[in-house]
Amino acid sequence: MPERQRDFLSDLFQALADRSRKLLRSQQNGNVNAPLEELAEALLSTRGEASGVSLAGTLVEFWHGIGEENRRNWFLHLARNLGPDIEALSRAVSIWQEDPSPAHASLLHKAAEPRRQELFRRINMAPNGTATLVEMRAALLANIKSHPELSSVDADFEHLFTSWFNRGFLVLKRIDWSSSADVLEKIIQYEAVHEIRGWDDLKGRLKPADRRCFAFFHPQMPDEPLVFVEVALTRGIPAHIAPVIATERQPIDEAEADTAVFYSITNTQAGLRGVSFGNFLIKQVVEELLRELPQLKCFVTLSPVPGFAAWLAAERDNPSGRPLPPQLFDVLAQENWHAVDETRSAVGPLLEQAAALYLTEAKTTTGKPADAVARFHLNNGAVLERINVAGDLSPKGLRQSHGIMVNYRYHLDAIERNHEAYANANQVVTSPQLQKIVSKAEAASLTRGWQSLLPQRNTKK
Amino acid sequence: MPERQRDFLSDLFQALADRSRKLLRSQQNGNVNAPLEELAEALLSTRGEASGVSLAGTLVEFWHGIGEENRRNWFLHLARNLGPDIEALSRAVSIWQEDPSPAHASLLHKAAEPRRQELFRRINMAPNGTATLVEMRAALLANIKSHPELSSVDADFEHLFTSWFNRGFLVLKRIDWSSSADVLEKIIQYEAVHEIRGWDDLKGRLKPADRRCFAFFHPQMPDEPLVFVEVALTRGIPAHIAPVIATERQPIDEAEADTAVFYSITNTQAGLRGVSFGNFLIKQVVEELLRELPQLKCFVTLSPVPGFAAWLAAERDNPSGRPLPPQLFDVLAQENWHAVDETRSAVGPLLEQAAALYLTEAKTTTGKPADAVARFHLNNGAVLERINVAGDLSPKGLRQSHGIMVNYRYHLDAIERNHEAYANANQVVTSPQLQKIVSKAEAASLTRGWQSLLPQRNTKK
Amino acid sequence: MPERQRDFLSDLFQALADRSRKLLRSQQNGNVNAPLEELAEALLSTRGEASGVSLAGTLVEFWHGIGEENRRNWFLHLARNLGPDIEALSRAVSIWQEDPSPAHASLLHKAAEPRRQELFRRINMAPNGTATLVEMRAALLANIKSHPELSSVDADFEHLFTSWFNRGFLVLKRIDWSSSADVLEKIIQYEAVHEIRGWDDLKGRLKPADRRCFAFFHPQMPDEPLVFVEVALTRGIPAHIAPVIATERQPIDEAEADTAVFYSITNTQAGLRGVSFGNFLIKQVVEELLRELPQLKCFVTLSPVPGFAAWLAAERDNPSGRPLPPQLFDVLAQENWHAVDETRSAVGPLLEQAAALYLTEAKTTTGKPADAVARFHLNNGAVLERINVAGDLSPKGLRQSHGIMVNYRYHLDAIERNHEAYANANQVVTSPQLQKIVSKAEAASLTRGWQSLLPQRNTKK
Amino acid sequence: MPERQRDFLSDLFQALADRSRKLLRSQQNGNVNAPLEELAEALLSTRGEASGVSLAGTLVEFWHGIGEENRRNWFLHLARNLGPDIEALSRAVSIWQEDPSPAHASLLHKAAEPRRQELFRRINMAPNGTATLVEMRAALLANIKSHPELSSVDADFEHLFTSWFNRGFLVLKRIDWSSSADVLEKIIQYEAVHEIRGWDDLKGRLKPADRRCFAFFHPQMPDEPLVFVEVALTRGIPAHIAPVIATERQPIDEAEADTAVFYSITNTQAGLRGVSFGNFLIKQVVEELLRELPQLKCFVTLSPVPGFAAWLAAERDNPSGRPLPPQLFDVLAQENWHAVDETRSAVGPLLEQAAALYLTEAKTTTGKPADAVARFHLNNGAVLERINVAGDLSPKGLRQSHGIMVNYRYHLDAIERNHEAYANANQVVTSPQLQKIVSKAEAASLTRGWQSLLPQRNTKK
Repeated sequence: MPERQRDFLSDLFQALADRSRKLLRSQQNGNVNAPLEELAEALLSTRGEASGVSLAGTLVEFWHGIGEENRRNWFLHLARNLGPDIEALSRAVSIWQEDPSPAHASLLHKAAEPRRQELFRRINMAPNGTATLVEMRAALLANIKSHPELSSVDADFEHLFTSWFNRGFLVLKRIDWSSSADVLEKIIQYEAVHEIRGWDDLKGRLKPADRRCFAFFHPQMPDEPLVFVEVALTRGIPAHIAPVIATERQPIDEAEADTAVFYSITNTQAGLRGVSFGNFLIKQVVEELLRELPQLKCFVTLSPVPGFAAWLAAERDNPSGRPLPPQLFDVLAQENWHAVDETRSAVGPLLEQAAALYLTEAKTTTGKPADAVARFHLNNGAVLERINVAGDLSPKGLRQSHGIMVNYRYHLDAIERNHEAYANANQVVTSPQLQKIVSKAEAASLTRGWQSLLPQRNTKK
Repeated sequence: MPERQRDFLSDLFQALADRSRKLLRSQQNGNVNAPLEELAEALLSTRGEASGVSLAGTLVEFWHGIGEENRRNWFLHLARNLGPDIEALSRAVSIWQEDPSPAHASLLHKAAEPRRQELFRRINMAPNGTATLVEMRAALLANIKSHPELSSVDADFEHLFTSWFNRGFLVLKRIDWSSSADVLEKIIQYEAVHEIRGWDDLKGRLKPADRRCFAFFHPQMPDEPLVFVEVALTRGIPAHIAPVIATERQPIDEAEADTAVFYSITNTQAGLRGVSFGNFLIKQVVEELLRELPQLKCFVTLSPVPGFAAWLAAERDNPSGRPLPPQLFDVLAQENWHAVDETRSAVGPLLEQAAALYLTEAKTTTGKPADAVARFHLNNGAVLERINVAGDLSPKGLRQSHGIMVNYRYHLDAIERNHEAYANANQVVTSPQLQKIVSKAEAASLTRGWQSLLPQRNTKK
Repeated sequence: MPERQRDFLSDLFQALADRSRKLLRSQQNGNVNAPLEELAEALLSTRGEASGVSLAGTLVEFWHGIGEENRRNWFLHLARNLGPDIEALSRAVSIWQEDPSPAHASLLHKAAEPRRQELFRRINMAPNGTATLVEMRAALLANIKSHPELSSVDADFEHLFTSWFNRGFLVLKRIDWSSSADVLEKIIQYEAVHEIRGWDDLKGRLKPADRRCFAFFHPQMPDEPLVFVEVALTRGIPAHIAPVIATERQPIDEAEADTAVFYSITNTQAGLRGVSFGNFLIKQVVEELLRELPQLKCFVTLSPVPGFAAWLAAERDNPSGRPLPPQLFDVLAQENWHAVDETRSAVGPLLEQAAALYLTEAKTTTGKPADAVARFHLNNGAVLERINVAGDLSPKGLRQSHGIMVNYRYHLDAIERNHEAYANANQVVTSPQLQKIVSKAEAASLTRGWQSLLPQRNTKK
Repeated sequence: MPERQRDFLSDLFQALADRSRKLLRSQQNGNVNAPLEELAEALLSTRGEASGVSLAGTLVEFWHGIGEENRRNWFLHLARNLGPDIEALSRAVSIWQEDPSPAHASLLHKAAEPRRQELFRRINMAPNGTATLVEMRAALLANIKSHPELSSVDADFEHLFTSWFNRGFLVLKRIDWSSSADVLEKIIQYEAVHEIRGWDDLKGRLKPADRRCFAFFHPQMPDEPLVFVEVALTRGIPAHIAPVIATERQPIDEAEADTAVFYSITNTQAGLRGVSFGNFLIKQVVEELLRELPQLKCFVTLSPVPGFAAWLAAERDNPSGRPLPPQLFDVLAQENWHAVDETRSAVGPLLEQAAALYLTEAKTTTGKPADAVARFHLNNGAVLERINVAGDLSPKGLRQSHGIMVNYRYHLDAIERNHEAYANANQVVTSPQLQKIVSKAEAASLTRGWQSLLPQRNTKK
């Protein structure tokens, strides 16, 4: 750096740097986090107004340098010492109780704000501040089970992020083979549903004319896709994932497609848990696709059923709902049942019905479907369209759902209605076709009619 | 729009549009804002989750269409009906009073949040949502004096905007003659300090090699400079504004400049009152300039003194501080005193001293300097460097400060110290040179020694 | 600049700069252009290979500094001393005459290339080289009438520019209110057909929803629109220019437009004379517009008839074609004939027929239409659609064409056919409607039937 | 595509498409290239003016579809039938011989231009036209040895490309990990000097702070790096390639580097043979690097010596120059001589001297160095700085140069002087250090003093 510039710019930051170094050296006092806590205090003080950007920068750098244990201590410090000013809060409570006017409610709200919220806002001024805060929360979440008192800190993060990562601030971008390697390597790394095995596999998902990928970005984190969806343009609704992600497949002309299949949706940031993107993403991608390809008629997912196998095993051991056919368990216990045409076609209808019961009748304590993926799409206003036996015969697919996959379908004119039925009345909206499967399963389980479903196999036995 | 796309996309929004229209028609019920209030309610409900973007879009459009009176009613509705849920808040207060744990404080903070904050966050999802909210607050501020109860709504806006327009989310951009006309016409329109008279004048401020202009933008409002500063690169510190903004001036080579003069800083958004940008802007512009022109040695403003003439008039009529010299008032009462060399040079020292007293001794009730521009730069850590008599002889300059202008100077290594002295102890840091003027003025006022300052004039009389 | 960089970079260019300065000082030898000529020689020599970019830069700077006379001398130097190597050319001619093989033809072509072509290519390496060469040719063209020997230099420029400004290298860009001021001020400055009176007028032509403007750019001259077209989106074909360019007009919704009117096309670079852009521009703009607004049905110009008044005056004085009606001349001689309803409606049909004869029968020596604008659009494949009396009542419009304007229409499926009819057989393709006017005019002139066209007026007299 | 748009846009291209299809079908006439030849004729005709872009597009598409043999026929057609108009050329020759005026020379040059040059310019209008022409020439070059008559076509391509890919039109871009995958996969694919083994290897060459990569692009081929250079920032001049390209190396801080090493330069386009980029690239990259890192003191290559091993073998079998030491051949004949410290250190000085003789004394028939890489850098003005024994012990390095690598050094203030010495006098400029090696080698070979260089080995024997 040229001489004069050094003179002046460094004059600007010198004092600060000196102090920081002093802080960093002061670690012999037992609390290795002391400098971090002092930096936080400085950032919240008058000095923070004059030198906020550089104080925040120093704090961010420091935080990146400390280990897991110190991070936990940092979070505990946030929880214990950077809540609201209790005295001020008490006063505000008294005033409001005396006269619960809007103005006093306003004061109360202000007094109840934990000091760490302002701290987070000031940390955000640092270069890379936003990304660091998201990372900080991810680290916090890893500690929350063992330290429940941290949940108040987590609530503040969530509150702030819900505001900062508001849909209005997110930018939809198409990701394709002309995207930067920086972004693309993150797609490879983050993809959670169907693993991407290197750059060639990635190219196969992005470059062919019948493939699309879209992501939301935040302007402050331009290389970080926050959530992304992979789309296949197809003729008809696919039932199996393998041909969709095969590297050797023959692409079709995009103009021939009538269906857009959302076959993988991935939230990438653990630190943004509870901030909803996915539903906005799907809806905006539908709009983008219709603008480009107005001939598309059907918007549908090809989704895993992550909780099915576990539920089935639990039902087998401790039936909680309708009785399930014992033959099903017999067959599934056979290794490679899916590789033998006979067993596969025999067990198919049973599996389908069991999955139908799981998706429509297995519930959480709050009355929502037990399956997380089902909750996501139903809450977005989709319809449970179709269950596909042998949809995913990969080891993971077999392990988590005995190979079952599901299509959830977005009828554009019914999204709002379906969402309300689901949100207000816990209703699982199904296609007529699926409704029949459910009815059959219900009837079978009532009459123990499962037997009839596997005649060949049984007689053979 | 092609047929199919119409089918599907419009199916998506049809129901909503229908309902909106119904709402819009329902205005015979006396409350013309009823649809707006219903839209707000819908946006806050379950439906808002499914159709938030389009409900918000409808609300934004509707709001833009209503007149001043209805806007006031809308704000009153926000104040009266969209505060926190009182019952829930009472409950949270009780729980916290019983056990003031961090978790309960958290709950209390959440319960105290007015519903309108969530409403604003959802409105923000609309296309143009952020800009509309900023505009909404500007309209609110125009009503707040006559309706003090609106201040709780204003507090919510300010809280939200402080978070959303956090320094970490702002983008510094240079504005020059290659900027878009969209942005440039806003510079013309917004410039509040020294009026820009059309595009040629603008070009003279942006294109020459010795001129710079920088602004902060928010990613969501890419054509709106939020705050901008105009910079002149000079040799030495200028005392007069006229040659700086003259359209016919001879530019110097930027490599010859040793000083950067911030001669105009403008906040453009009334709706962002209370959200501080200006101090960050100046500091980052200093960094930018040093990167480009490391030879710069001096960073200084050429600033108006907007409150001086009013203060002087008040002191004349009702002296509140030190006595001021009567000769000064005599001369200033003469028309064109500034155009006559004799009177100008005679009154100069008196004016300078009076201004020095004004800037260092006239205070607000909170002990800060009475002059708003002084408060801004001193709070940023600048030093009161020099008072310039006849610095601005434009009608506006004469009217508001009898032509006085001030240089505030940013010593890079003293910014933090100066800011703290000011913020914590209300100290007005001055240059040694200015300190002498102040001392002289103090001495003169104590001994009534003003007389000696105008010997020629007096003897002439 | 930092010290080390100065050391190295300047070492790089020092020797060159020294020599240039020496050259520049050597002007006492009588030929002030000597340094320029030496730079050209150096650039063509071995040194030009090593230091081409900086030698070219020096030459460009030098050239910009010399006056008109020296520029002329420079051009004469190019013409006289930088043609092909005569000896080598003679040799190549002999070889080819002996054996006219393709290889020998190749050699001959190479030998016949003037050295200045290579010089131009090397000058092009300079920063701003391309723009300088274009400017150089513009200066050359200003001298060519008085110095016909320069036409060989001009031919080389044209040859090179035809290659460099090949359609394949041009980039179409929409120009609107978000374009840079740099580009926009050039639109104001260049507009040749209907003057743009400042930035407000410009905004009126660019910002409303029913206005478009497109230009071709060359990547090497990114701020220079080479040719631009202004488009009005209308319902129906307009007959008058005034409402189209009125600043106070009421824009229509773009979705309602059925017609795109090219009401102004401007070539901006004198130095690119003979390099055809305009036809490509119109065709690509039609494609762009159809992509955005597929409902457009009609693509048409509203064009001046620049040669009409002059031709009419010449015909009046020295009839060369069909006899024209004397009443026409009488009326046009009256001041403000166009402001009086009576005379205007009386003379209208006569003017229309005379213009029809002018456009279809007045020819250049090569058999093409006498009117330059007609030649341009007919050669592009347009049809002469309609003649509009009182289409342009501005002083310029009255002066050059007695207010007549013409619509040329582009039928997309007939462009190629029309172009070929015009290019190969000089055919002026007209609309059926216009054909009737022509026939009427022909019949009238044959039978001297013009009289009947102005009965009222004549009887009144 | 929406209905109306289909109507109009397709009307625009229908006739053309019909005709093209007819042409494509007409292949039963024996000449499968007939349609291509007809398209070329159409493109050169009047029709080409009206519909050039789409005719060119059709031709480009057609050409991409034909096989190798038809491509050859196409080239022969270009050579035989699309040369200059012989008759016109004869006429122009006669006129010029009668009066060799500049104007007549101009005419002659024009008449000598082969029609295919205009054809190429028109093909260039097609989407992807430029890239197709470059590809076309690459295909031509593959045929030129077997069909020497094609060299006239090649001359036209080279002439055109020299003009179109003029340095002034090229854009330097840094390539790094934020570049698009589209471009990056080409870097992997094209790298000719030190193979890049996949994306991880690529990341190692682009992302670390001490690595740079720059390329020239043409605006019309934005995804095609035409030539690129890989740079390592180091302390001191490296002698071995392996640590430079090791994937596991420890990067240094860029601020600590004093040397920039150009360790790989790759021309990517066979079709641009003879168009020089590389020298411009190196010089501009030096400027870029100095701008970013002004502390750099040394610019140097680490280059292969591709012709050394072949030359050495030839000298062994048929000595043409100075006698070489037989011991050298003995040692090199041993497998793994380089892996044994003893043999390696023994043979080192001999190898170094032999390479010094090769680089300074082995010449082509035109008197230039026999080594292609040496020719490139010496012609750019570099100095032969240092010979590195065991610089590249990869199989390729051993095979082509017995592991020898060379540093060529660019002294910024001597580039022009060195280039001239080389270009005008075939002088190989060497560093003093290398000059000593050369002298020693010359002395040794004169006195047969080689013996003394390998004392240990010899005595051992």
